[in-house]
Amino acid sequence: MIVYHLYSGGKDSSLAAWILTRLGYKVELVTVTFGLLDNWKYAKETAERLGFEHRTLHLPLEILERAAEMAINDGHPNNSIQFIHEKALEAIASMPEAERVSDGTRRDDRVPFLGLPKARSLEDRFNVAYIRPLLGLGYKTIRELTEGLFLVEIRESEELEKADYEVELRHLLRERGIDPLEIFPKSHYQSRVMGWKEKVI
Amino acid sequence: MIVYHLYSGGKDSSLAAWILTRLGYKVELVTVTFGLLDNWKYAKETAERLGFEHRTLHLPLEILERAAEMAINDGHPNNSIQFIHEKALEAIASMPEAERVSDGTRRDDRVPFLGLPKARSLEDRFNVAYIRPLLGLGYKTIRELTEGLFLVEIRESEELEKADYEVELRHLLRERGIDPLEIFPKSHYQSRVMGWKEKVI
Repeated sequence: MIVYHLYSGGKDSSLAAWILTRLGYKVELVTVTFGLLDNWKYAKETAERLGFEHRTLHLPLEILERAAEMAINDGHPNNSIQFIHEKALEAIASMPEAERVSDGTRRDDRVPFLGLPKARSLEDRFNVAYIRPLLGLGYKTIRELTEGLFLVEIRESEELEKADYEVELRHLLRERGIDPLEIFPKSHYQSRVMGWKEKVI
Repeated sequence: MIVYHLYSGGKDSSLAAWILTRLGYKVELVTVTFGLLDNWKYAKETAERLGFEHRTLHLPLEILERAAEMAINDGHPNNSIQFIHEKALEAIASMPEAERVSDGTRRDDRVPFLGLPKARSLEDRFNVAYIRPLLGLGYKTIRELTEGLFLVEIRESEELEKADYEVELRHLLRERGIDPLEIFPKSHYQSRVMGWKEKVI
């Protein structure tokens, strides 16, 4: 029973992947890239450190371009992040071998987040089960599980060594002469999962 | 790390309890009773078969009486079931030893179900983490996990050997001369968890 799990290398998607293994699923991590940068390699590196299978999935650059237009028009990134996330899930769900897809979205997330109608629509259109292991967990529970499991590196940095699709979106905005800091909230601290605290899978 | 888990002995609350153990939590099952019937014993029996700690928690009969009035006034049980569920969670969350409470509510449930503001309110008022292991799972995933784990007995029956609080609510309605079938949808098949397919915890 394989689950294809949308993976950024961050704490949430790593925790969700671990939970899937605990439920008895075989997990293959999938990192989306638009081919603009090679920041997917950070997710691959974390996946290797954690011992998961990993693949990258190329999405058409047009999706990122449309997302950039949305971010510019809106002046904030919410709709564009939501749009990319939905396209990423659809791309994974449309892989012929995919019967189960998952992500690390949380109960307290505003975006990206699929409400119940969208979640069911994804399942029905692609005939998959959509699993969100973190959906029923609040921040306290996520924190205590994450702290018990992962070695995490936190640093103050503008260098985003992350495989989040935000990174390629920011890059595209910069290419178009727009300062991403006018659209994205400024965040000083980046965290990256560097491995297990002890080997658990 | 103990979780106090609202437990009816049914498939959903049993699956949620198993998931909690897989996340590394110690689980104590809690079955609510209003002292009207002893149907809590079915939950206790299933808990013992599965190897979980179990306790019963007595709720004031006034709560059930108020729920019965709601059901009679509404002509359907949804609000009354929601009301009892919230009171049951509050009762568990207010136990001095409770830092984490959980239940088996699902993504596709309409009632009982706590929306995000109510979930956060429960956590804030009682200083607990509220964990819903099934919230991110659709019916396909719940079915495949349940079928792999549990021996389930399904029978056509009006005899409700269940520890669901619906049973005491129906009983109170009958005591007041009201046929529960005028309020509750008629269901022919009852399922009960009888044990593990193989010993898993």
